[in-house]
Amino acid sequence: MMAVNLKGRDLICTQDWSVEELEATLELGAKMKKERYSEEHAAILRHKTFMLMFYNSSLRTRQSFEAAATELGGHAQFLETKNLRLKSKTQSGEVMKDTAGVMSRYGVGIGIRILEDSVEKYGDGDKFLRDFADVATVPIISMAHDMFHPCQGLADVMGMRESIGDTRGKTLLQIWGYSPMVRSWSSVQESIVINSRLGMNVRMAYPEGFEIDPDVIETTKANCAAAGTTFEVTHDQDAAYDGVDVVYSRHWMHPKRYELGREGEQELSAKHKDWRATTERMARTHDAAFIHPMPIDRGNEADDAVCDAERSIIYDVAENRLHAQKAIMALTMG
Amino acid sequence: MMAVNLKGRDLICTQDWSVEELEATLELGAKMKKERYSEEHAAILRHKTFMLMFYNSSLRTRQSFEAAATELGGHAQFLETKNLRLKSKTQSGEVMKDTAGVMSRYGVGIGIRILEDSVEKYGDGDKFLRDFADVATVPIISMAHDMFHPCQGLADVMGMRESIGDTRGKTLLQIWGYSPMVRSWSSVQESIVINSRLGMNVRMAYPEGFEIDPDVIETTKANCAAAGTTFEVTHDQDAAYDGVDVVYSRHWMHPKRYELGREGEQELSAKHKDWRATTERMARTHDAAFIHPMPIDRGNEADDAVCDAERSIIYDVAENRLHAQKAIMALTMG
Amino acid sequence: MMAVNLKGRDLICTQDWSVEELEATLELGAKMKKERYSEEHAAILRHKTFMLMFYNSSLRTRQSFEAAATELGGHAQFLETKNLRLKSKTQSGEVMKDTAGVMSRYGVGIGIRILEDSVEKYGDGDKFLRDFADVATVPIISMAHDMFHPCQGLADVMGMRESIGDTRGKTLLQIWGYSPMVRSWSSVQESIVINSRLGMNVRMAYPEGFEIDPDVIETTKANCAAAGTTFEVTHDQDAAYDGVDVVYSRHWMHPKRYELGREGEQELSAKHKDWRATTERMARTHDAAFIHPMPIDRGNEADDAVCDAERSIIYDVAENRLHAQKAIMALTMG
Repeated sequence: MMAVNLKGRDLICTQDWSVEELEATLELGAKMKKERYSEEHAAILRHKTFMLMFYNSSLRTRQSFEAAATELGGHAQFLETKNLRLKSKTQSGEVMKDTAGVMSRYGVGIGIRILEDSVEKYGDGDKFLRDFADVATVPIISMAHDMFHPCQGLADVMGMRESIGDTRGKTLLQIWGYSPMVRSWSSVQESIVINSRLGMNVRMAYPEGFEIDPDVIETTKANCAAAGTTFEVTHDQDAAYDGVDVVYSRHWMHPKRYELGREGEQELSAKHKDWRATTERMARTHDAAFIHPMPIDRGNEADDAVCDAERSIIYDVAENRLHAQKAIMALTMG
Repeated sequence: MMAVNLKGRDLICTQDWSVEELEATLELGAKMKKERYSEEHAAILRHKTFMLMFYNSSLRTRQSFEAAATELGGHAQFLETKNLRLKSKTQSGEVMKDTAGVMSRYGVGIGIRILEDSVEKYGDGDKFLRDFADVATVPIISMAHDMFHPCQGLADVMGMRESIGDTRGKTLLQIWGYSPMVRSWSSVQESIVINSRLGMNVRMAYPEGFEIDPDVIETTKANCAAAGTTFEVTHDQDAAYDGVDVVYSRHWMHPKRYELGREGEQELSAKHKDWRATTERMARTHDAAFIHPMPIDRGNEADDAVCDAERSIIYDVAENRLHAQKAIMALTMG
Repeated sequence: MMAVNLKGRDLICTQDWSVEELEATLELGAKMKKERYSEEHAAILRHKTFMLMFYNSSLRTRQSFEAAATELGGHAQFLETKNLRLKSKTQSGEVMKDTAGVMSRYGVGIGIRILEDSVEKYGDGDKFLRDFADVATVPIISMAHDMFHPCQGLADVMGMRESIGDTRGKTLLQIWGYSPMVRSWSSVQESIVINSRLGMNVRMAYPEGFEIDPDVIETTKANCAAAGTTFEVTHDQDAAYDGVDVVYSRHWMHPKRYELGREGEQELSAKHKDWRATTERMARTHDAAFIHPMPIDRGNEADDAVCDAERSIIYDVAENRLHAQKAIMALTMG
């Protein structure tokens, strides 16, 4: 194993960690996948508590984090944040410092999920995590927030490497897919940031107007420049598939989602129902693997035939969430 | 121990398993009851996850399944199905195949509870479980559904055998008891199916009109024929008690419950408030054991004196849920 | 360790236990704090289940109890009492005896939290716990109820001893602090009862009218008399701080809270917004430790400077909840 020391570190975006730290995490995740349920790994968090704070519900994230804690010998507490009354301008309550301070005495780490619907404006979720991390004395792990989803990003990389081997120099197509589900930027932004960082060419394709955070684009471009790879944007859905090695088709919300509300966003998205991964489009690729962070909106984001194809690794990536999270918890809290 | 191989099998109704398989489960359940908290049993699901999906809440079922997983060394995740958005004709969401496929990667088994109130019509709960089992790659266990309740059935048999010894050739009175609680057919149908299968005479007694599923009656009759025992139906509450070895007095809903709604059903049931297990009626039996799957509606389904009598085994049967479920989990997932 | 036998005992108020029993619990709690995560302690509830029944939610109490069970090798089930339908005058349901009887078969102990808002009148929560304890066959532990909060009381004592050493003969100021949060009497009443019992002088200070339960005052006076210490009441907020060794500033509700409702209570409390622990007031003390059961309403019950001062032990006391509860569970259920 590579020698890195991540003890006590937070994970809010993979960009916060060095490439060496990310590679060590990926290596440990792969090892843990191979040696699932080993007693050695079950000693890592033995009898220790990991706290799960869900400002937005997620069955999958909860399942994978709770199983991760169990497999490391510990226990994840699934906490209802509606019972957590933080002080605000308009109501009495507890200051974040006290909440975080006491949780840090009970548990060895805290996972927080806080998406668009739980914050007033884009970026507030990221700020919440970073503020919480400042006052907590144990690692804070993003379980997806409005900007990033580091655990998903690491699981994606694990899955790609299992499927296409070394990803360096290969091309990821990050493509918008239609869905009425008004999806967060978190997984998509995490994907382009981590994969550019680890040496892939990144091609983004989306209907005009569906731009994501320009700062994240800048980070991605800088990552590509540092790695000597390319970053492209196209609005030509079909040509976008040409020669790519991985297709990641997923809906992401319009940048005006906060002003528009959910229904307004759905109307805008519905103008692009033709944006969908199909077998025909997949045929233009370099025998690309198909990934998606799930749940996938079949028939919209991608056709059944694509989801169920041999080159689809959607279940493997979902499973990798577990292994990646075990590795993260082991390295930061073990 | 008997040599059966149940590894990977679902349990939706005990009728799906062979008599030998049921007997092996009962034997292991009894052994686990004797050796509670042994380290040997705690190795069976060590650090593994069992998923609990409750479409209908149940404090007891949750308690017994969660404790079962803990005692086997694993952990049961109590999942809120309101967060599980399955695709339907009218809403976007995840297809069952994907939900089940990913859960199968995280856990070693899935328990599902889905009763009348969560489905459109009788039988849909059973279909849901069987469809889910088709697409999951780990065992699916019914934690009670609109048709059957196999864990309750096995716990009942354990309790009867502890109380009256060998049940073969003895007579079970499955009798309707008044309650406004609009109760499922699941426990009752499971009871007559499993007990006929394992060699008991079955006598059903209920107010006219309160028929249950005719297919289940046919199965029960066939079970009795195969075992050389008798199946009777009576509407004479008092005579029903004559000479029976076990009394199982419980409300079950009218077959028109779906058309009538809960209040309509309650009105129909309320015409038969005299249907109740009393000390006088119990005196007509062959010193019968009294069972009920609980929670029992005292004063309606049975008098306090019956519930608290020495021959009442209601708490023992409730406890046996834990042991039966541990045995089921051990054999199918261990 | 002191030789006491608490196996099977309930803990509803510390006054129910002997001083020797309380001292043994405190001693074990301090030992468990020093030896956190030791395998020896993790064997105490190995694979056993502790049931948590929250009639009133509490993130902190849940976190500390769930972590306590985990650290003892067991598992705490977080149960939703809304799913627990107890029989009442107006609705069908299960009698308490049956609920408690079956839970006693699944778990080795039951924690119950039931505060003002869940009962019709003061005292009903205490009665509920005592009735439940009568019919359960495993220990019942109060996780805070309308009258007392024994786990908090023990955690307070642990924290004080860590901070000021031997508390005997020293003086506790139990002082009312303004907050709109309409707080229970439980922590406050527990505090004066246990600290008088264990040899402290008790000084209470509050705005006129904010009397607490006169029976609890009588118990406290009797404890002080037995210990040879003093019990005082004052309505002079400033003089109250003179020479005390521990300051415990917390809001408690007006005795007419049930008649007034929450808003009426808030109006009454709001007349005393000046009741607040400040640095100036703390300067009048004998370099007192500052404690609070948290969550603390900063700026109301106490100023930030007091909460964050070196003499503040609020996080230590919060952490001690965990250790005290582990000791209680170990001694009563181990």
